[in-house]
Amino acid sequence: MLFAVTMHVNIPEDLPPVVRAETIAREKAYSQDLQRKGVWRHIWRHAGQYSNLSIFDVESNDALHEVLWNLPLFRFMTLEVVPLSAHPSDIAVTG
Amino acid sequence: MLFAVTMHVNIPEDLPPVVRAETIAREKAYSQDLQRKGVWRHIWRHAGQYSNLSIFDVESNDALHEVLWNLPLFRFMTLEVVPLSAHPSDIAVTG
Amino acid sequence: MLFAVTMHVNIPEDLPPVVRAETIAREKAYSQDLQRKGVWRHIWRHAGQYSNLSIFDVESNDALHEVLWNLPLFRFMTLEVVPLSAHPSDIAVTG
Amino acid sequence: MLFAVTMHVNIPEDLPPVVRAETIAREKAYSQDLQRKGVWRHIWRHAGQYSNLSIFDVESNDALHEVLWNLPLFRFMTLEVVPLSAHPSDIAVTG
Amino acid sequence: MLFAVTMHVNIPEDLPPVVRAETIAREKAYSQDLQRKGVWRHIWRHAGQYSNLSIFDVESNDALHEVLWNLPLFRFMTLEVVPLSAHPSDIAVTG
Amino acid sequence: MLFAVTMHVNIPEDLPPVVRAETIAREKAYSQDLQRKGVWRHIWRHAGQYSNLSIFDVESNDALHEVLWNLPLFRFMTLEVVPLSAHPSDIAVTG
Amino acid sequence: MLFAVTMHVNIPEDLPPVVRAETIAREKAYSQDLQRKGVWRHIWRHAGQYSNLSIFDVESNDALHEVLWNLPLFRFMTLEVVPLSAHPSDIAVTG
Amino acid sequence: MLFAVTMHVNIPEDLPPVVRAETIAREKAYSQDLQRKGVWRHIWRHAGQYSNLSIFDVESNDALHEVLWNLPLFRFMTLEVVPLSAHPSDIAVTG
Amino acid sequence: MLFAVTMHVNIPEDLPPVVRAETIAREKAYSQDLQRKGVWRHIWRHAGQYSNLSIFDVESNDALHEVLWNLPLFRFMTLEVVPLSAHPSDIAVTG
Amino acid sequence: MLFAVTMHVNIPEDLPPVVRAETIAREKAYSQDLQRKGVWRHIWRHAGQYSNLSIFDVESNDALHEVLWNLPLFRFMTLEVVPLSAHPSDIAVTG
Repeated sequence: MLFAVTMHVNIPEDLPPVVRAETIAREKAYSQDLQRKGVWRHIWRHAGQYSNLSIFDVESNDALHEVLWNLPLFRFMTLEVVPLSAHPSDIAVTG
Repeated sequence: MLFAVTMHVNIPEDLPPVVRAETIAREKAYSQDLQRKGVWRHIWRHAGQYSNLSIFDVESNDALHEVLWNLPLFRFMTLEVVPLSAHPSDIAVTG
Repeated sequence: MLFAVTMHVNIPEDLPPVVRAETIAREKAYSQDLQRKGVWRHIWRHAGQYSNLSIFDVESNDALHEVLWNLPLFRFMTLEVVPLSAHPSDIAVTG
Repeated sequence: MLFAVTMHVNIPEDLPPVVRAETIAREKAYSQDLQRKGVWRHIWRHAGQYSNLSIFDVESNDALHEVLWNLPLFRFMTLEVVPLSAHPSDIAVTG
Repeated sequence: MLFAVTMHVNIPEDLPPVVRAETIAREKAYSQDLQRKGVWRHIWRHAGQYSNLSIFDVESNDALHEVLWNLPLFRFMTLEVVPLSAHPSDIAVTG
Repeated sequence: MLFAVTMHVNIPEDLPPVVRAETIAREKAYSQDLQRKGVWRHIWRHAGQYSNLSIFDVESNDALHEVLWNLPLFRFMTLEVVPLSAHPSDIAVTG
Repeated sequence: MLFAVTMHVNIPEDLPPVVRAETIAREKAYSQDLQRKGVWRHIWRHAGQYSNLSIFDVESNDALHEVLWNLPLFRFMTLEVVPLSAHPSDIAVTG
Repeated sequence: MLFAVTMHVNIPEDLPPVVRAETIAREKAYSQDLQRKGVWRHIWRHAGQYSNLSIFDVESNDALHEVLWNLPLFRFMTLEVVPLSAHPSDIAVTG
Repeated sequence: MLFAVTMHVNIPEDLPPVVRAETIAREKAYSQDLQRKGVWRHIWRHAGQYSNLSIFDVESNDALHEVLWNLPLFRFMTLEVVPLSAHPSDIAVTG
Repeated sequence: MLFAVTMHVNIPEDLPPVVRAETIAREKAYSQDLQRKGVWRHIWRHAGQYSNLSIFDVESNDALHEVLWNLPLFRFMTLEVVPLSAHPSDIAVTG
């Protein structure tokens, strides 16, 4: 089950640089682990922005919440969550 | 080069049903042709909405405009266009 | 899996009264059938508005889309869809 | 008398962790007490967000204000309050 | 129990003048009847606008919905509904 | 001459508690003095919000500005000001 | 007593040209009459827009409403009304 | 003196095709004439939209209004007008 | 050449009172100097707000930017700038 | 390939003046280097605002992101990015 999630990142200026760097590193590892598991299906940067468009493939809303709530950058993000469904024009669906 | 395009469809009530059906059929054929060519990389329905999230892969902004301007439903759509770039956490990019 | 759906209804003035009445009647029957099946868990009127807040219990985003897309009043509605998950303070969850 | 209340939580970064944890614990106890009394009828997490949708059953606007104003997290929340009324399609009403 | 209701009126240009005049006359009679009953406590025009701010005193959300839903101009209005409660600085409350 | 004024209060977390309490006390005294003089005609709490809807009766825009500018909480408030005029359906006006 | 009023004009395409021309002519005469009386103190076009910024000098909110409500183009306008007061830096006020 | 003007075009569906085509042709001729005169300095399409970003070089606000008000498509456009000034980092200015 | 400029002032709470007072004094002197020169043609307070509506008469966009950029309170302001042109109904224009 | 980028600058009050000055100097040098290379084709100040409208000419979305992400003021900016394409009325295109 797919969800489009847009993440806008806004790290406070006064976060110590070490904490900042460490959090971003954990975020990257967290993301790549979920990408390898097939949960985080796509991640694209919004060109010119500190934000991204991601596609998640999860079994339920609860699973999606678990994944997003535990993002290392979660407390510095604004998220938009849009549930997706199959499109009748998708050739993967209708051939 | 990827672009996220959100399309909100709003067909007027007074469009003759035959025109409506024919336009939707042309839209589907147009979309599936571009999907087969690898230009229209993804199309997902926003669950519960007459709108979709699509990912396009084109060579330039001009090419993107050409594709969208010629959508059979273009005049009944509101579009949002977001240029995407590679994300440093994408395992396809950084391994 | 629960979703909160807000439906704002705006039936055009020039819809023939017979069509209007018939569509509203079908909407009511459609809703009550889904309520009896446990899919449409709650429906509340926004006081003073032609809109409602509904809670749906479905197996997937696709199932939700199917239910909403087929609402007899769908083409006269603006919908907002919010995926819900269990709240850690809910006594039904944590006792 | 029912009200839909959406609560968006935004706890400042510089709140001492002990105060943060203690406030969240008091919020949970406060919520669960009202759930057991039948006042706080539903609480759902917005998937992927630090916010919730709650349904309250109170005798008056004054009673609602009393309940919300005393939320331990009140000063860190943005709230939206929507009065609800019975929907004519609700099978519990028109059966 | 008090509610602040803001009503923005937008009567379509193509409504026949006779229907327009008759609807406005019924609206006025309906309003004045509720004013005399103490339900519609205040009505003020927004200066320079076809809209008003009204204060209603009703027993419940259901009663408020009943009153507003039956406004002769309801289908030509956009309404905002805000539940009010006693203010601790009100001299009528705290003396 | 009446004005509807909506006041949204947002006192900073780091205001010393003594200053906070003293400012709120001065605000209450200021409000009640103006209520007794007939200038601050109504004050209602928005249920569930730290905001209020107030009705002022003043002789001029200058007088309104004087009253609002000197609110002890003014610097912590966002205000909306709407000039009101007599409504033709008001029974106090048209009988 | 001064008010800043912004008027956005949107005349429907299907208004008969004769009615359109006649209404605009009446609007101009109405405006110029009030300008000569000192009520409509300023009128400026928003460059590149079918809208204007006007300053009115009236005795009360009721007088302002009377003036605006009777604008020949009123039903084709969206208006914003802002009450103005003397500014402490104005040399006409403080010398 | 430069102005950035964004034009969003929305031609009504029921405009006769001949009028539509003729108006668009006049718009193009009008634009190209002003381009040749150096008044309409740039015109770019917003990719995927029926809108454009244009840069005008005029002597005054009045001249700008004259140019925009007489656009053949003016009545079908929503315009945003932003006055521009020299930027201190512009190499054409500071070398 | 006229411009309507709306200035919303928001001075941070933690600005030292001496700096605050001195900045406001400089702002007033700066404004009154420009008023005497005929550049700052009008300044009105938005009643009940820490904001003003001002009319500037300058020779160019560059001149306007110079005036606004050097406002002592500039860094604490949000500004809206609207270029104005002569209105065809203005009796000063068309007599 | 052209992009319109609007940059709104908001440097925090508590940034040390030396850092502020040094960052602005680096921003200017960075911009002028890219202007000389033909990448940053235009930069205009929004009159009366700490913001600018810029036109970039880059080979791809990735190249655009690289340029913007490395702006010395990037972390103090809000950016809007709009992909541009050739306009059919542009005389440089259609002669």
